[in-house]
Amino acid sequence: MASTTSLPFIGTLPAGTRDAITDVAGVTVGHRTLADGPVQTGVTVIRPHAGDPFRDKVPAAAVVLNGFGKSVGLVQLAELGVLETPIALTNTFSVGTVATAQIRACAAANPETGRTLPAVNPLVFECNDGFLNDIQRLAVTEADYLQALAATDADFAQGSVGAGRGMSSFQLKGGIGSASRRVAIVDGTTCTVGALVLANYGRQPQLVLAGHAVGEKLAALQQASKEASEPEQGSIIIVVATDAPLDARQLRRLALRAGAGLARTGSVFGHGSGDLVLAFSTAYTVPDRADRPMPAVAMLHDTLLDGLFQAAADSTEQAIFHALWRATPVTGRDGNHRAALGELLPASSLSPLV
Amino acid sequence: MASTTSLPFIGTLPAGTRDAITDVAGVTVGHRTLADGPVQTGVTVIRPHAGDPFRDKVPAAAVVLNGFGKSVGLVQLAELGVLETPIALTNTFSVGTVATAQIRACAAANPETGRTLPAVNPLVFECNDGFLNDIQRLAVTEADYLQALAATDADFAQGSVGAGRGMSSFQLKGGIGSASRRVAIVDGTTCTVGALVLANYGRQPQLVLAGHAVGEKLAALQQASKEASEPEQGSIIIVVATDAPLDARQLRRLALRAGAGLARTGSVFGHGSGDLVLAFSTAYTVPDRADRPMPAVAMLHDTLLDGLFQAAADSTEQAIFHALWRATPVTGRDGNHRAALGELLPASSLSPLV
Amino acid sequence: MASTTSLPFIGTLPAGTRDAITDVAGVTVGHRTLADGPVQTGVTVIRPHAGDPFRDKVPAAAVVLNGFGKSVGLVQLAELGVLETPIALTNTFSVGTVATAQIRACAAANPETGRTLPAVNPLVFECNDGFLNDIQRLAVTEADYLQALAATDADFAQGSVGAGRGMSSFQLKGGIGSASRRVAIVDGTTCTVGALVLANYGRQPQLVLAGHAVGEKLAALQQASKEASEPEQGSIIIVVATDAPLDARQLRRLALRAGAGLARTGSVFGHGSGDLVLAFSTAYTVPDRADRPMPAVAMLHDTLLDGLFQAAADSTEQAIFHALWRATPVTGRDGNHRAALGELLPASSLSPLV
Amino acid sequence: MASTTSLPFIGTLPAGTRDAITDVAGVTVGHRTLADGPVQTGVTVIRPHAGDPFRDKVPAAAVVLNGFGKSVGLVQLAELGVLETPIALTNTFSVGTVATAQIRACAAANPETGRTLPAVNPLVFECNDGFLNDIQRLAVTEADYLQALAATDADFAQGSVGAGRGMSSFQLKGGIGSASRRVAIVDGTTCTVGALVLANYGRQPQLVLAGHAVGEKLAALQQASKEASEPEQGSIIIVVATDAPLDARQLRRLALRAGAGLARTGSVFGHGSGDLVLAFSTAYTVPDRADRPMPAVAMLHDTLLDGLFQAAADSTEQAIFHALWRATPVTGRDGNHRAALGELLPASSLSPLV
Repeated sequence: MASTTSLPFIGTLPAGTRDAITDVAGVTVGHRTLADGPVQTGVTVIRPHAGDPFRDKVPAAAVVLNGFGKSVGLVQLAELGVLETPIALTNTFSVGTVATAQIRACAAANPETGRTLPAVNPLVFECNDGFLNDIQRLAVTEADYLQALAATDADFAQGSVGAGRGMSSFQLKGGIGSASRRVAIVDGTTCTVGALVLANYGRQPQLVLAGHAVGEKLAALQQASKEASEPEQGSIIIVVATDAPLDARQLRRLALRAGAGLARTGSVFGHGSGDLVLAFSTAYTVPDRADRPMPAVAMLHDTLLDGLFQAAADSTEQAIFHALWRATPVTGRDGNHRAALGELLPASSLSPLV
Repeated sequence: MASTTSLPFIGTLPAGTRDAITDVAGVTVGHRTLADGPVQTGVTVIRPHAGDPFRDKVPAAAVVLNGFGKSVGLVQLAELGVLETPIALTNTFSVGTVATAQIRACAAANPETGRTLPAVNPLVFECNDGFLNDIQRLAVTEADYLQALAATDADFAQGSVGAGRGMSSFQLKGGIGSASRRVAIVDGTTCTVGALVLANYGRQPQLVLAGHAVGEKLAALQQASKEASEPEQGSIIIVVATDAPLDARQLRRLALRAGAGLARTGSVFGHGSGDLVLAFSTAYTVPDRADRPMPAVAMLHDTLLDGLFQAAADSTEQAIFHALWRATPVTGRDGNHRAALGELLPASSLSPLV
Repeated sequence: MASTTSLPFIGTLPAGTRDAITDVAGVTVGHRTLADGPVQTGVTVIRPHAGDPFRDKVPAAAVVLNGFGKSVGLVQLAELGVLETPIALTNTFSVGTVATAQIRACAAANPETGRTLPAVNPLVFECNDGFLNDIQRLAVTEADYLQALAATDADFAQGSVGAGRGMSSFQLKGGIGSASRRVAIVDGTTCTVGALVLANYGRQPQLVLAGHAVGEKLAALQQASKEASEPEQGSIIIVVATDAPLDARQLRRLALRAGAGLARTGSVFGHGSGDLVLAFSTAYTVPDRADRPMPAVAMLHDTLLDGLFQAAADSTEQAIFHALWRATPVTGRDGNHRAALGELLPASSLSPLV
Repeated sequence: MASTTSLPFIGTLPAGTRDAITDVAGVTVGHRTLADGPVQTGVTVIRPHAGDPFRDKVPAAAVVLNGFGKSVGLVQLAELGVLETPIALTNTFSVGTVATAQIRACAAANPETGRTLPAVNPLVFECNDGFLNDIQRLAVTEADYLQALAATDADFAQGSVGAGRGMSSFQLKGGIGSASRRVAIVDGTTCTVGALVLANYGRQPQLVLAGHAVGEKLAALQQASKEASEPEQGSIIIVVATDAPLDARQLRRLALRAGAGLARTGSVFGHGSGDLVLAFSTAYTVPDRADRPMPAVAMLHDTLLDGLFQAAADSTEQAIFHALWRATPVTGRDGNHRAALGELLPASSLSPLV
């Protein structure tokens, strides 16, 4: 992998220390990767804080850029403006299993959920990794979710790992990428916005990397391996975290701006793509019960959001670049293969791109 | 059970032959009921037509009256305006299992789903039956979904059956109810609107039956058994079918009117209630592939919708009445018990209600 | 007008002192009524507080139950979650004029609006009073808005006044009605919810007054005057105010519950009816500029909303009753006439209704 | 103005004959420009067909990318999925006047609107031209709308004309731009997608022209004239037309993709920007009355939409380029001045940009 300093850098806002979503303090990410012949898939878990989000709920909102997707949990999230489980990413057909794992994990910690306490709302996003992964095997188990959860840490791998193991993007190997940007608000206050993507979308000729339309060139390089008739069935899940004090309405606004970063990479939110964005804030939590005090929060004034909007777009575009750049090649079911961007555009050739 | 003729009849539109959702030609309903001590739950399946909805998709739309719910499948349904699996109803914690069962059933019939064909979008609605059912056992299996599917028929039971087995409504036994209304449109054309509810909502003092506020009276009768501190965690799922040619936008309008019928029963769409409505049309289907011809449909003119709106509201209110009236008493986990409305208001006392 | 004590009272929550929206402290209402032969129309203005809402914006949200309407201002209100002008009600064709009046009034007080300050967002709701009023005359002037604004007070008239002058409801005289309910939350805290309606909707046979289906009876009484072919082109605007600390997401939830109150009166949100609800909170304001401090507000916990939901539904139903009951008969363009409910159901006959 | 051949061309789809929205057959555009000292504003009208859209309504949908805007007509458009007046564009404070003009024009042609026929739904979009135009003068009259309407033609001017007269974009002169793309669907069928923009948005350092980030360079060139403290209060209105047979749900999908084209120019849909997209189809119309037959239309299969999505994004980006490139410099109120892009980047320098 090329050193970070030689990679294209999106925009003018500074990145956080890790240039990753975990630059938002308290956020951690963990993977469980399944890589065994035709099984190339996994689970990625994002924890918004170290506690139990069922007890200390996290303000959140989602935007559906294109709804060809099977994610679960968004109805309640839209109504209540909070998430109450870790955020899970996996393949399309494993959503049910991972949701069930989330229910069981919550019940283990909160024995009254579904009885005297409300039933927990699982939150699982997905992309279809059926090109590399034999998705019909439904290989992901509830234990895999627990392993990903147990592995969460501020440091985490990117590329062909976790839920990203079997994902393809622009007919290249896709997967997990992350980035962050720091925004000076006022009076010396600085906020961080981080993005994590599960990139499984895109048609190669449209690919734009850091402002350079490299898609046609790549398509020529890959001519032999390209399946002309392959249907576009990709998707991208974008998770945006911030430590800015925002309510659900403002987080929905922030989430939409990830779509601007996505569009810059050549996406037009294709018909068959489930393009969803979730945004959450770590600035405060909402207690599960009315007998615990509600936080008195002064939200950020909406006129101060422009910097955060820029950060959401830039960190999303950067995270997509990282997902492609950090991916390693994978061969999966029926010998299907995805090359890595780094194989086709080696580090030495990247500078002219910028 | 009282004879149908002695029951209150909502509104002035005539009912269909069965006064059930299956009066919409082609619609069938099946149940799988689990009733064994602390396990009081099940699955109900509604098929919109006799074919495979993955191949012949059904125009549909959903309305979230209150989103405290965990139903799956609504993101894609909103984007594409079609449903592509049978509609499944179950308890809150079994949604993942039933969704997985739908995936596997679709893959069995369509081996390329998730590969060269798009991944199927499961459609599962739920209410929390945790008062009577030991919901944390996750007793529903994938086989239970298949049994409910195999049992679908134009004739089907109502009350404490299928997904309705463990449901409570107004601190009474709730469950499955259904009704239909026929609407003369123009030029002798008649359309049918049918509703099926999974009733698990309501606070007893607010109960209004066929226009009569009987809640306070019932609350007095039940005084001994009433748990004052019981949290309101109900829900209601309403499925509306019609044979009128409507597109997804119009079906969303129709679905909302079920909320008017719900409101007449005393509901204010409580905070903790997942109150969702799904509406679909059987007038035409949408092919799964672009190489099959799209139907050329003359939709109903919007100015002709008022009769259907009335029918949606009236059949919903009637279906709720049926759910309560046809329910049989159930004792479940920890000896928790729900009486049936018919025990407290015997048939002979119903006439004065009307 | 009958004494208040003899009127039906909706629900079990107590009313505020005035049983009107102005029981929410700070809220005032004013009318400008135009009643001259074929001109039977007007303007009603609701001020959320005594200050300038352009500087001290008011948290607000709207729900469209049926969007056959021409109200202005809702796009920005949905995005920002605040209103920034008084709320104006008028007839359908005068929306443009009243919006322009709001712009000019804001510019007079804030000379930089549209220049260095953002352009103000007018907020005008409407119903079509074309049966009684010669709506094509566009009789309402900008001065009429200013007169209604100047007349705002905690005490205000109801019935055939202001924007309600020419409105019809259930083929009776409709217009302005208002009511309020008080809700005990916790620890002795009490909140008030008030509703004001502009009632111009409904088909007579469906009318339900305080739980009694009087529509058919009234239709028989009015048989001679009923125009069978009259198209249903009604609408209802419902404004809900509360002093509870709610954010825009919660206010949207509250607004929807007004729809439950509306449904209880026999409405199914007809196709041709613009049925809109606006809800706002007076508990705090949002400053117009980021250099003024944002309020640190502890919102009400969502699990405590059920009482407010009940209050929104009950006060809406009561306000509709008041609009009908307090209306006086009006004869307008082409001799068109609407009788008042009180003429047909005199006070002495109301008790059996209850 | 440079010849078209030397201008950057966005994407790989071919343009229509005019590379303008009027390549969609039947669509015409007209302007009324007010340019007199401090009054620099106007009206632009788009007619979807040569008939009266009140009688023959046009399927349409809108997307709000950022709702800091005062457009009117979107509530009813969302409910019914049709537009029923010509589309008007003007400045923010003239929306009321232009809406009133639309009402009066409709009433002149349809004397029963608001009486036995429904009240017409005006459709007016706006941006704030307050930097160049003395917006508080409310200079636009109803007659100006009629003049723009009378001027509609398949050939129309772009740049600093009509509603675009006073608009600014990226601290340059903005205004009206248009473009089109042709899409081969299947079996030799070709559809056209056209876009027209009213460009009044953008912060100069972010400007990306045809894939080249020229913003910083331009900002350096303009250093002397740049007002550092100028608040971002821009907006962009995008109108997308197509002759493909799409229903309102599909048109909403199409409209969203214009946002991808917008994002490519450097926009992140800023907080203070009213970024709205309207899409309509000319493939069929919806009759105003139920006694006229509804069209039986086979809509385009959703899996065939990707080409149209690309066309919507590309034609929007191209239209924005045209708006900037074809704008002429304007000096307005208080001597405020906007330079034209063509002054700063003359035609000879554009080639290296591409």
